[in-house]
Amino acid sequence: MTDRQLKIIEIVKQSGPITSEQIATLLSVTRATLRPDLAILTMSGILDARPKVGYFYVGIDENNLIAKKLRSKKVEDLMSLPVVVGEEATVYDTIVTIFLEDTGSVFVTDGGFLTGVVSRKDLLKNAIGGIDINKIPVGIIMTRRPNIVMAFPDENISDVARKIIEHEVDSVPVVEHVKREDGKEGYKILGKISKINIARFFVELAGE
Amino acid sequence: MTDRQLKIIEIVKQSGPITSEQIATLLSVTRATLRPDLAILTMSGILDARPKVGYFYVGIDENNLIAKKLRSKKVEDLMSLPVVVGEEATVYDTIVTIFLEDTGSVFVTDGGFLTGVVSRKDLLKNAIGGIDINKIPVGIIMTRRPNIVMAFPDENISDVARKIIEHEVDSVPVVEHVKREDGKEGYKILGKISKINIARFFVELAGE
Repeated sequence: MTDRQLKIIEIVKQSGPITSEQIATLLSVTRATLRPDLAILTMSGILDARPKVGYFYVGIDENNLIAKKLRSKKVEDLMSLPVVVGEEATVYDTIVTIFLEDTGSVFVTDGGFLTGVVSRKDLLKNAIGGIDINKIPVGIIMTRRPNIVMAFPDENISDVARKIIEHEVDSVPVVEHVKREDGKEGYKILGKISKINIARFFVELAGE
Repeated sequence: MTDRQLKIIEIVKQSGPITSEQIATLLSVTRATLRPDLAILTMSGILDARPKVGYFYVGIDENNLIAKKLRSKKVEDLMSLPVVVGEEATVYDTIVTIFLEDTGSVFVTDGGFLTGVVSRKDLLKNAIGGIDINKIPVGIIMTRRPNIVMAFPDENISDVARKIIEHEVDSVPVVEHVKREDGKEGYKILGKISKINIARFFVELAGE
């Protein structure tokens, strides 16, 4: 679309219905100059015209375009590095890790496979709960599989955003299912999607 | 835009460059039937054609449309209820409030005006820090004005999302500046924008 066509759309959006004469005056051009632009905008369905009334804005289906764009983004394109501890780490060590890595959640593994998730909220609850956080291993207080919400690399980011909202979690581990040569199988952690990844993508889309 | 025009766009997007003959075959119509649609799509700048090559997709400026839409949403349209405690509340009481209200941050007021913010992270740090959380008031450990990131009701949601990312906070209070009859002035808390509000808006835009 040309600059002038975009200007016409803006004018009609704000002041429609408006005659071609009025648009011409606002743009300081002749009606003859405008005619091809108005023809294109009308034929493409962006504007419509009614005799003796003028041009009005119909619009392209913005919401549909936006939905498509948001759904086209995959988890693997946005995920960040996960923070992981072993099940044997103490609650205190896990709290220290949360601060050192400045993260909201820590994923817990055993033998290379995901076994649990622990959040700031879980840690806070236990820090004031009267247990000895220097002795109790994180494996005791974490949320354990299968009660964990997970994401996969080729999932849409909007589906994962929905999971995060519905399950009221700060982040989800991005995993792939693997079967090792020793016959053991489970989920390997590839990354993390948190609310901050979603907010960053949002800001990126909104531009400068 | 008509259904057929949308179908043509899809075909050209996926298979372009493609001749009008090939498009006609795919849609089971004659080239003559397609001619007006192709004219409209070419004139509106969505498709372009090169002799002996065929039609190819140019596209409408989706990114610009999306950016506009995201920037058009105001804080007041998305904000949720704030959770507030007085400065004299103990750290322990504040932790209990965080769990009861299931929130990530608590705003602190004195005489009706915003004076501070305290997050799960601040509370966790203090819960293991060796202070008596049953005695120390939250006013001692909170982040105090003017070191607080705030939002205003008529700000764009994307600007607030940027603030949340840049300042690495979970949420910001939505405030208005008031001057009371007694001469005191400050910020009254109207609501809260958190990462979850942004994620919810994102999911809403992405649709079903």
